[in-house]
Amino acid sequence: MLAPPLRQQSLGAGRVSQPPCRRRTPNPNPVCHNAAAQGCDPPSPTGLQATQESPHIYTREEVRSHSSPETRIWVTLGCEVFDVTEFVDLHPGGPSKLMLAAGGPLEPFWALYAVHNQPHVREMLAQYKIGELSPEDKAPSTLKTSDPYIDDPVRHPALKVNSQRPFNAEPPPELLTENYITPNPIFFTRNHLPVPNLDPETYRLHVVGPPGGQSLCLSLDDLYKFPKHEITVTLQCAGNRRSEMTQFKEVRGLEWNIGAISTARWAGARLCDVLAKAGHQLCETEAHVCFEGLDSDPTGTAYGASIPLARAMDPEAEVLLAYEMNGQPLPRDHGFPVRVVVPGVVGARHVKWLGKVSVEPEESYSHWQRRDYKGFSPSVDWDTVDFDSAPSIQELPVQSAITEPKDGETVQSGEVTIKGYAWSGGGRAVVRVDVSLDGGLTWHVAELDGEEQRPRKAWAWRLWQLQAPVPAGRKELNIVCKAVDDSYNVQPDTVAPIWNLRGVLSNAWHHVHVHVAP
Amino acid sequence: MLAPPLRQQSLGAGRVSQPPCRRRTPNPNPVCHNAAAQGCDPPSPTGLQATQESPHIYTREEVRSHSSPETRIWVTLGCEVFDVTEFVDLHPGGPSKLMLAAGGPLEPFWALYAVHNQPHVREMLAQYKIGELSPEDKAPSTLKTSDPYIDDPVRHPALKVNSQRPFNAEPPPELLTENYITPNPIFFTRNHLPVPNLDPETYRLHVVGPPGGQSLCLSLDDLYKFPKHEITVTLQCAGNRRSEMTQFKEVRGLEWNIGAISTARWAGARLCDVLAKAGHQLCETEAHVCFEGLDSDPTGTAYGASIPLARAMDPEAEVLLAYEMNGQPLPRDHGFPVRVVVPGVVGARHVKWLGKVSVEPEESYSHWQRRDYKGFSPSVDWDTVDFDSAPSIQELPVQSAITEPKDGETVQSGEVTIKGYAWSGGGRAVVRVDVSLDGGLTWHVAELDGEEQRPRKAWAWRLWQLQAPVPAGRKELNIVCKAVDDSYNVQPDTVAPIWNLRGVLSNAWHHVHVHVAP
Repeated sequence: MLAPPLRQQSLGAGRVSQPPCRRRTPNPNPVCHNAAAQGCDPPSPTGLQATQESPHIYTREEVRSHSSPETRIWVTLGCEVFDVTEFVDLHPGGPSKLMLAAGGPLEPFWALYAVHNQPHVREMLAQYKIGELSPEDKAPSTLKTSDPYIDDPVRHPALKVNSQRPFNAEPPPELLTENYITPNPIFFTRNHLPVPNLDPETYRLHVVGPPGGQSLCLSLDDLYKFPKHEITVTLQCAGNRRSEMTQFKEVRGLEWNIGAISTARWAGARLCDVLAKAGHQLCETEAHVCFEGLDSDPTGTAYGASIPLARAMDPEAEVLLAYEMNGQPLPRDHGFPVRVVVPGVVGARHVKWLGKVSVEPEESYSHWQRRDYKGFSPSVDWDTVDFDSAPSIQELPVQSAITEPKDGETVQSGEVTIKGYAWSGGGRAVVRVDVSLDGGLTWHVAELDGEEQRPRKAWAWRLWQLQAPVPAGRKELNIVCKAVDDSYNVQPDTVAPIWNLRGVLSNAWHHVHVHVAP
Repeated sequence: MLAPPLRQQSLGAGRVSQPPCRRRTPNPNPVCHNAAAQGCDPPSPTGLQATQESPHIYTREEVRSHSSPETRIWVTLGCEVFDVTEFVDLHPGGPSKLMLAAGGPLEPFWALYAVHNQPHVREMLAQYKIGELSPEDKAPSTLKTSDPYIDDPVRHPALKVNSQRPFNAEPPPELLTENYITPNPIFFTRNHLPVPNLDPETYRLHVVGPPGGQSLCLSLDDLYKFPKHEITVTLQCAGNRRSEMTQFKEVRGLEWNIGAISTARWAGARLCDVLAKAGHQLCETEAHVCFEGLDSDPTGTAYGASIPLARAMDPEAEVLLAYEMNGQPLPRDHGFPVRVVVPGVVGARHVKWLGKVSVEPEESYSHWQRRDYKGFSPSVDWDTVDFDSAPSIQELPVQSAITEPKDGETVQSGEVTIKGYAWSGGGRAVVRVDVSLDGGLTWHVAELDGEEQRPRKAWAWRLWQLQAPVPAGRKELNIVCKAVDDSYNVQPDTVAPIWNLRGVLSNAWHHVHVHVAP
């Protein structure tokens, strides 16, 4: 790498497709003199006008004075200045996150969220360019950013990485259903922030008591004293199979394939026992139990989410404060030393590195609860979306996917073996998986493997397989699967009618196209 | 009618399309002499060979000796004799029902189930013809059948009748969503047997106690002494919208349109309170609470069904022994004096004219629990079906339909108003209804009316409507609706992939095609 360390940090590393800013090659931009040395990016495709007329020149002082809607909101990237006032409410990460950079440079924040390092983000930003920094202010920001991800754990090389910072990765399909229980090192990982490095000796979980009651401050040893409860639970990210939605129409989100789902044996204290110990009772309200992680952004904002109190207090719902995953202490990527496990519910509520539990009159005010992880009609876009109009995702709908054969593979004529997984939210058991070799015209019933599930507590997936004769003379097969749960809910036929701007809840029939060996 | 009363009874009345058997016109069958006078049916299309050669002749005594699989199973209809041994296991009403007629005439049983009076049933039976009755035995069976339906109540003329005996009828779409609460007289009616006429003074509900415990024998006054619980619940028949499945491929079942669903305010004692009074407790088993109705067939077999004990004992599931419907005593068609109401669960479990409640280790052995009301893959037909392979339907999947405009109607250009209902099983609330005017290419979000629902207890439907501009220049509209519930389950796009041999669980997108006035 030619770029010096600071620049490398501020743009993030890994899958960056843009050239590093401080490259030593001549910069073609005739306006931004010595831009290469000053940290200015090459002109973006839509910013070409800047090369044809003199840009407005602003000082850092001037930029700093534009940090509120009243004064308008300016930010800088390299030597360029942008007025993002109109964009703030459209910011996929939430307005508050963008406001952190108001009046200053974007680099320290983009260092946290490498998702920004994509061409379409640059293009979007270019539309808001209003000028450039004055020559004396073109030096990179003096705000030193240490790499917040430098302490992230080492990961298994088999994982398919969708984002390095924060780390998001999934097991490849061929490993995903190799075992009913997913081995810890290849369990899909969905991080929103850097992984905290917590000392189990000093770790404390803060459980806020009810009004007039007593709060708890629990060490790991304290947690171990609650009855240990152990259950097999499948976790799935709301964005699993998002890549199929993207194929229909662009969405904002990580490009998950079919692997943002995994299954583990979790052990820990039941949340209802801990809440009861703190004096909480179930009341007939819309109260939520709010969780806060110990992972946080530079402003100290922690990851947060919540679930209804009714679920939290229901012993049958088996919500855990888990400290073991497949018989081991939680790996750091999965919330060491304590995470929430909410069986049957979207992964986003299984808060990792759990620091605080409280009962609130309403659901969590966290960005991830109220401004993300919601489903919308295909007609809703980023100009019309009203996040308050949709409920936050809790239970997930019925889901299935094919893990073998892989798309594009060549299978032998004669007989083909098809494997995959199926799962449904809310403890609903998968009762049947239908598989088609002809795109959905005719169907076979697959054999369900894996453990039988308890009624109303089918928290874990079923693996399935089918041996089927390859119809004679076929050169290609369009293999499809669809699952049915015990409420007889089914998957929708196609993805377009469930498309949504965040690309969540992608559970249409899964297709795999293969060639048949002659 | 030319047919004498007995014959009219034995073939059933109402929608019979076959000519009455004892007609006075000359019978073209040259073999069955004097068939018209003897009660012999005209030859069926597949029975033509009988007209070309002399049939075997059997006595009633001989027929009577063939009444078990060992001796083979014969039955008679009119003067014809059939060996139905191979058909018994395929009988849609269950083998046990057909075995009731083994060795004797079918007429007394067909009198109960008018569904048999259809051409395809006659055709199916004709395949099994082995001969005819001897001349001296051709007189109609001496088994006198009084009309078991003669005491059925008088019904509202607005109801669209799908079957008179037993009575099955639905409100027309234009009335269905006129009110959030369906008026009692037009609430859809699904009877399996004649309506019993019960005396509220002598009525008793038998609740079997646990082993070593005490059984209860409750009068209505006893039931009134339990806390009165009142809830709004939508009931839906598993066969609602079956007619759309039939359009794709024939199924066996009543031709319900979109009206086998209705909503009422029910009041009664909670089942959990009554079970607790009898000494029952929740145990960690697969136990079911079995219900028996006081309606029964000629052998005394009562309608029966069951639900999991876990649901029955859960106060939050609000299962009722209901004695009031919209502030009135239950109408006779809806179970007077007491029926079960199981919120969020298929109508078939809401046993009417309730006579007995017991807790059993397994689900009910009733035909309607184990050999009906189950879903299968589209690949399963009556030759391959294994009823034990599928779970009995309990919670129903998400559902919606358009009640206005009606299919084939002409709407004004300018703006169109679209109305309908949406509901989901298991207490899952409907969170959104999408409506398309172009067959599903683009979508509008409908406005949800009706009561807001409590979390996890959304037992009642939402009515919805949309005012949408009619795209200029369109001569026809393909209007579609689809609903989303709070587990973000959606309806499947098309009916073919969810087709099943009984035509249950028909919840694909609902389409209405209308013309636009020029």
